[in-house]
Amino acid sequence: MATYVLVHGAWHTGELFEETAAPIRAAGHVVHLPTIAGNRPGDAKSVGLDAAISSIVDYLTEHDLSDVILAGHSYGGMVITGVADRVPDRLRRLVYWNAFVPNDGESLNDLVPPHYVTLFDGIAAASPDNGVMLPFPIWREVFINDADLELAQSTYEKLNPHPYATFTDKISLKTNPAAMQVAKSYVNCTEDTALPQSLGWHPRMSEKLGLFRLVQSPGSHELCFTNPGLLAEKIMIAGRD
Amino acid sequence: MATYVLVHGAWHTGELFEETAAPIRAAGHVVHLPTIAGNRPGDAKSVGLDAAISSIVDYLTEHDLSDVILAGHSYGGMVITGVADRVPDRLRRLVYWNAFVPNDGESLNDLVPPHYVTLFDGIAAASPDNGVMLPFPIWREVFINDADLELAQSTYEKLNPHPYATFTDKISLKTNPAAMQVAKSYVNCTEDTALPQSLGWHPRMSEKLGLFRLVQSPGSHELCFTNPGLLAEKIMIAGRD
Amino acid sequence: MATYVLVHGAWHTGELFEETAAPIRAAGHVVHLPTIAGNRPGDAKSVGLDAAISSIVDYLTEHDLSDVILAGHSYGGMVITGVADRVPDRLRRLVYWNAFVPNDGESLNDLVPPHYVTLFDGIAAASPDNGVMLPFPIWREVFINDADLELAQSTYEKLNPHPYATFTDKISLKTNPAAMQVAKSYVNCTEDTALPQSLGWHPRMSEKLGLFRLVQSPGSHELCFTNPGLLAEKIMIAGRD
Repeated sequence: MATYVLVHGAWHTGELFEETAAPIRAAGHVVHLPTIAGNRPGDAKSVGLDAAISSIVDYLTEHDLSDVILAGHSYGGMVITGVADRVPDRLRRLVYWNAFVPNDGESLNDLVPPHYVTLFDGIAAASPDNGVMLPFPIWREVFINDADLELAQSTYEKLNPHPYATFTDKISLKTNPAAMQVAKSYVNCTEDTALPQSLGWHPRMSEKLGLFRLVQSPGSHELCFTNPGLLAEKIMIAGRD
Repeated sequence: MATYVLVHGAWHTGELFEETAAPIRAAGHVVHLPTIAGNRPGDAKSVGLDAAISSIVDYLTEHDLSDVILAGHSYGGMVITGVADRVPDRLRRLVYWNAFVPNDGESLNDLVPPHYVTLFDGIAAASPDNGVMLPFPIWREVFINDADLELAQSTYEKLNPHPYATFTDKISLKTNPAAMQVAKSYVNCTEDTALPQSLGWHPRMSEKLGLFRLVQSPGSHELCFTNPGLLAEKIMIAGRD
Repeated sequence: MATYVLVHGAWHTGELFEETAAPIRAAGHVVHLPTIAGNRPGDAKSVGLDAAISSIVDYLTEHDLSDVILAGHSYGGMVITGVADRVPDRLRRLVYWNAFVPNDGESLNDLVPPHYVTLFDGIAAASPDNGVMLPFPIWREVFINDADLELAQSTYEKLNPHPYATFTDKISLKTNPAAMQVAKSYVNCTEDTALPQSLGWHPRMSEKLGLFRLVQSPGSHELCFTNPGLLAEKIMIAGRD
C-alpha cells in the first residue's frame, strides 16, 4: 500500500487531519500528519516560508520516507510545492486539495484578492508576534459554509494564530510546478469560497500544474471537519496511480 | 425556531412555494409566502418595482414580523434587496436563490443579456397592459430543464403575466448589498441556465453581496417544482446562523 | 419510444457505447451505434471530416431513420453538426455530450488549446498514414481521471488511431448550430478535463447552440467507461421532449 503525508493549511495542525487519516489507514495505507513549523504548540510566530518548507523536508528525511503521496491543503500547497522542488526523489505524487500553487517568486499573498491582503496586513500590524487569526465571521461564512453553527464554533476553537511571514515571503523554486516531473492531482471542493470563486482554486490554481488529474467533491474549504470520510475517499482517488 | 419569508420570482405567486414551505414548516419554522404586487390575481400589470418592493415591506409590517430570514428567487432578489434597504431591523438574514442582486440604480434588465431585453421589449410592445409572458420553449429548455415535458407543461399553466415595469425600473437603494450589515447567503442551482452560465447567477450576482455564504444544489431555476424538498433543505442550510 | 443514434468520439468506435446503449434499450428505445468512417477496422487513416460526416448521413439514409435523437461525443460533435446541416428532416433533437460545436469554417483544431495542436501535429508528422494516437498519460490523467489504473489501461487498449485530417479539416455548414431549428441539448460531465476547464466544454461550446437544454453529470470525458449507466440516464434526460 502507499504512504500518504498530509500537510495542513494555515491556522491548522496535523492533528486536525486525524479524522481524515482514519479511513485512509483503514484502507491499508500509512498516513503521516506532520505539523508545519510555526503552527506547532509553542512555535514562534515569526517563522517564514523557507523554514516552514524545511520543517516538512526534515520530516520526510528524518522518517526516511520515499514513494510518498504528498498532499497539501490551502497554504499547505505553498509548502508541498517547495518540498517537491527540494526532494523530488522522495515523492510518488503531489495532491493539492484546494491549495495554492505558486510559481517561483510568488507569495501566498500574491495569489489572493487584495481585500484579504488588506485584512491580514491590518491584523498583523496589531499582532505582538506577527501571528494572525482568521476572523470568525469569515471562517463561518466562507471557510466552513457547509457546517452548522455549533461545528463552526467548535472547530474555530482548535485553530492557532498563523505566522504571517509565510503569507508574505516569496517562494524560491528551481522548477515551476508545471515543469515538475512528479505526477500531480488537484482535489477541488465545489462549494469552497475561501477564495472568491470568480478568482478561485480551480481552474486558476490547478492549471498551473500542467498535466494534472482533477477530482471534485461537494463541500467547503473545511471538508476535513464537515465530511472527513468523503475527503479521505477523494484523496485516495487523487493519490492512486 | 425561525421565521422564513419566501419571495417568489417573475411569473410566479407565493402559492407556488407551498411544496417548498411544507418541509421547512415540518422542521418547526414559520413560513410566509406573500405574493408580490403585480402578480396577485386581479393586480394591474402596470405595477412598477417600487410598488412591488412596498408590497413586501407592507406584508412584514402588517404582520409585524421581525428576525426574518428573507429569501428571494430570481426577480425576487430585486425585491428583497429593496426590502432590506428599507426595513433592515426586521431581518436576520437574506437568502438569494438564483436571484438578481442589484446595486443602486440598476434594473433587472441591466443584469440580463441583451437578447432577453430584446425579447421582452417585443413582447411588452405587443401587450395591452405591459404584462409579459415567458415563451414556453424558453421555460422548457432553460428554466425547467430538469423536468419532464408533462411537468414543464403543467407548471407553465400556473404562471401569470409579469408586470414588465418591474424589469425596466431602476432600483433606488441607500446602501448597496455588499455594505448591508445583515447576514447573507446565496443558493445556487448548478444546472440553472435561466441566465446563460457564462454570464450567470454565481459568482457574478452572488459576489455583489460582499461576505456571503454559498450553498449549492443540483437542479434548474425551477427546483421549487422539480425537487421542492431539496430546495427546502438548501434554504434551511442557507438560512441558519 | 424514440430512436437514438450515438456517435462516438475520436479514437473510439460505436461498439464502445454498448454498455451505454443497454440501459437506453432497456427503457424501450431503439439505439444505433454506427462507427464513423476512419475509425472502422481496416479504414484508411487518410479519411477527412467530410467523409466522416457522410458516413453517418449514409447510415441514417441506408437505415431510413427518421425522428432521430442524434447524440455526439467529443469529436462526434463535429460530425453530428455536419449531419444536422445536411439531413435536418431526419432529426428530432441533437444531444452533444462534452462535444465540439463548430460554426461554419471551424476545424476541431481551431477549438482546442494550442498545446494540443502542437502535440498532435508532432504525432501526425511521425505517422506513416496520418493516424494519431492519444498518449497514455493524457488519457489517464485528463480523459479518464475518474477511473482506476486498471480500467484506464484496459480501455486504452480498445482505442484506435484517429484520422488526423478530421481534426484539421474545416467544416462547411449552410447553417450554424445556433440558427438550426432542431431542438438541442448539451450533457456536461463536471470533471471532464479533456479540454482545460478554463477553456472548456460548457459554457464555451454549449452556448454556441443558442437555445439549448443543459444536463450535467458527475464524471470524466469517458463516463461511457466509468459509469455507462449514469451516462445513459443523462442522455435520456437530454433526449426527451
